[in-house]
Amino acid sequence: MKAASKAAVGDVAQALAAQFGERCTTNETVRRQHAHSVTWGDVQPPDVVVFPQTQAEIVAIVRLCAAHHVPIVPFGTGTSLEGHVNAPFGGVSVDMSAMNRIIAVHPQDLDCVVEPGVTRKFLNENLRDTGLFFPIDPGADASIGGMVSTRASGTNAVRYGTMKDNVLSLTVVTAKGDVIRTASRAKKSSAGYDLTRLFVGAEGTLGIITDVTLRLFGIPEAVSGGICPFPSVQAACEATIQTIQSGIPIARIELLDALQVKGANLYSKLALPEVPMLLVEFHGSAQSVQEQATLFGEIAAEHGGGPFQWATKPEERSKLWQARHDAYWAACALRPGAKAVASDICVPISRLADCVVETQADIAKTGLVAPIVGHVGDGNFHVSIMVDMDNPKEIKTVKDFLERLVRRGLAMDGTCTGEHGIGQHKMPYLLEEHGPHVIDLMRQIKRGFDPDNIMNPGKIFEM
Amino acid sequence: MKAASKAAVGDVAQALAAQFGERCTTNETVRRQHAHSVTWGDVQPPDVVVFPQTQAEIVAIVRLCAAHHVPIVPFGTGTSLEGHVNAPFGGVSVDMSAMNRIIAVHPQDLDCVVEPGVTRKFLNENLRDTGLFFPIDPGADASIGGMVSTRASGTNAVRYGTMKDNVLSLTVVTAKGDVIRTASRAKKSSAGYDLTRLFVGAEGTLGIITDVTLRLFGIPEAVSGGICPFPSVQAACEATIQTIQSGIPIARIELLDALQVKGANLYSKLALPEVPMLLVEFHGSAQSVQEQATLFGEIAAEHGGGPFQWATKPEERSKLWQARHDAYWAACALRPGAKAVASDICVPISRLADCVVETQADIAKTGLVAPIVGHVGDGNFHVSIMVDMDNPKEIKTVKDFLERLVRRGLAMDGTCTGEHGIGQHKMPYLLEEHGPHVIDLMRQIKRGFDPDNIMNPGKIFEM
Repeated sequence: MKAASKAAVGDVAQALAAQFGERCTTNETVRRQHAHSVTWGDVQPPDVVVFPQTQAEIVAIVRLCAAHHVPIVPFGTGTSLEGHVNAPFGGVSVDMSAMNRIIAVHPQDLDCVVEPGVTRKFLNENLRDTGLFFPIDPGADASIGGMVSTRASGTNAVRYGTMKDNVLSLTVVTAKGDVIRTASRAKKSSAGYDLTRLFVGAEGTLGIITDVTLRLFGIPEAVSGGICPFPSVQAACEATIQTIQSGIPIARIELLDALQVKGANLYSKLALPEVPMLLVEFHGSAQSVQEQATLFGEIAAEHGGGPFQWATKPEERSKLWQARHDAYWAACALRPGAKAVASDICVPISRLADCVVETQADIAKTGLVAPIVGHVGDGNFHVSIMVDMDNPKEIKTVKDFLERLVRRGLAMDGTCTGEHGIGQHKMPYLLEEHGPHVIDLMRQIKRGFDPDNIMNPGKIFEM
Repeated sequence: MKAASKAAVGDVAQALAAQFGERCTTNETVRRQHAHSVTWGDVQPPDVVVFPQTQAEIVAIVRLCAAHHVPIVPFGTGTSLEGHVNAPFGGVSVDMSAMNRIIAVHPQDLDCVVEPGVTRKFLNENLRDTGLFFPIDPGADASIGGMVSTRASGTNAVRYGTMKDNVLSLTVVTAKGDVIRTASRAKKSSAGYDLTRLFVGAEGTLGIITDVTLRLFGIPEAVSGGICPFPSVQAACEATIQTIQSGIPIARIELLDALQVKGANLYSKLALPEVPMLLVEFHGSAQSVQEQATLFGEIAAEHGGGPFQWATKPEERSKLWQARHDAYWAACALRPGAKAVASDICVPISRLADCVVETQADIAKTGLVAPIVGHVGDGNFHVSIMVDMDNPKEIKTVKDFLERLVRRGLAMDGTCTGEHGIGQHKMPYLLEEHGPHVIDLMRQIKRGFDPDNIMNPGKIFEM
């Protein structure tokens, strides 16, 4: 792959300007914003940024770029973490923010159809009156299209699954400019290859999503939860395993290590004891929630945890969960001026305590400031490493640490990313995780769908 | 595609006989058994049947067939319904029944690793002592490999999902004879294209599965359920919708129409009133199960249902569910001597009542004997049509009816099959459901994975 020729890019830019007017720009600031990454990779701006409002406009953009072999980089909210929106070969960034309509809500079917630029918070605000909600909640207020494309999850995944489990159907503009729908609105199907699941997590490399049919859930009658200290990370992980084995349908169970709690105290003005904590939430009927909470309390106590601090009022609960969602900023508060580099891995839950404890020991040895938060019900955890970007030696230390982190996860039969995706930065680890034959099969799919490699090239694997 | 040359087949048969001895046969009875289908399609036997015991043997078979361009048809228990195990181009049926080991059970991770020839009942018998179970239950005691390949589900899907949701990872021998593993044992991952979900439902057209990592669940502390009559199919469907909307985590909710109840009374020696029935089951703690049942009872009553007949003793419950699983044989009891042809479609649940009622009216008009059972929580239902195979006019009537059934489902934004798969018989409907661009993408995948089209050719779509 090499960058598109200047002539081709020039022709495309001119045609886009003619069609889109002010909704098309080559302004450098805007271009750089569209390649922005919440990590340390180079900023590789696209040549043009365009803001379509309809599927027909997206078809026109794709056909134009296909005719000129010019790369297309779909852009949601730019909150992905592994360089997904960079344009290493230039081309057109397609900003989906104006594709933000909620097309239909079907309360009887517990589903809705939305455009990809709708963000998760906007969706839930608009669903509230229906008594329904969409549970997937990555930290950022990401767009639904971006969440589909990175196979996102978040704190509710232990109960409600990930994007893989909650997308019923997609409409996609293929690399040729054809419009396809991957599935009907039926809740299940055995009709041919599962193209829906293939586009979920494809990071924009197989087509541009133009609408998404999502599963919805009834807002639970009762919600309760709180925060519970533990004497060690192991004790917290063992309590988690036992909770899940007991069949308690826990909605959220999040680990914060002592350093992350310190960050949360600083950033969110809390006064929590700075020890490992589980932040939990129960959903159900009033009776069921109480029963779940009692059982969890017993399990926590068996593992030396407690006292449990209940947050029964919605505003207390919101404050705690806001603190959890602000983990990234809390990490930043631990070392002002440094840049946070966030990475995630996921291992079988039986190996989680070992993996977190070994990682903490590794952090201690390197001297890095790197708090840990985990979606421990899924065996998934995040390390936010605070880096002085003016210190090349420290950057080298961090890079080496991240490599050990991923390899530690892989050695425990885990994956190099539980929910952030591969993007540019984890490409070598994808190969390590799956081996060359699997990457070859992924390449075959990519070639079949996008023979000229115009859809978000330079991501996931080398062509 | 045309059949493999006699010379190629002869070479392959000879090489297999040399390697496998008595575990390889060209006996006509065995060959015909391996093309047997529980439906009305032609029997198209393979040229050879081979019974491998190890992954290495499967690699050898695939490499041999690949070298000679001879088709391979994986065979589980032969209980699929749409001609999946037929060999329209001849070749080698690979019978997986000797690949029936449970390789590992990981109670902390709630997963297990099994060979594809393990059947669902055998798995659950072997899991019982661990307190865990595998919930997916198609009517037949199918093999796990077959269930993966048809994206099977069953009565528990409304609570526990389908095979799509319960396979963590697969080991597969590709059409080239390479061994790949699609994913780690982590509960979730964003590492590249979702090859696991691509092989789930691929009906053996992309490779041969040699082991499967499955999610497991704790056996619920309490189970209760029973059967509830309704004045009409609409009333039963509306009660179902309200149950699910209310967030009751119902484990099973099955509709039997009046004719199916009559069949169950005949075959399973029950004495149920012959009206539409919902057969339900609740899983959870003792308290939660009671609460769920009370709520469901209230909803049923609002829709004119009841009185609810509780089956609290395990043996009563087993008898009812056995009657449900024997729906196929119950249908046969309604017209002794006729052959049952089973078909399934799935629609958004809001359209289910319309779809079932219109289908019943269609059945009445044709004069066919065709009871209906439905996984109504998912909008999925089955029609078992009793056919006199010596009456060509009746066969034509049934074929026309099936076409109308599928088109009725598609017109309601449903799918031509919720859980049986496409096989040979639903190929035209796959195209109708998805349109040519989607089928083209599926073909691209198939070409990339299996360029010589040796893996179960003639299934899902034409190449």
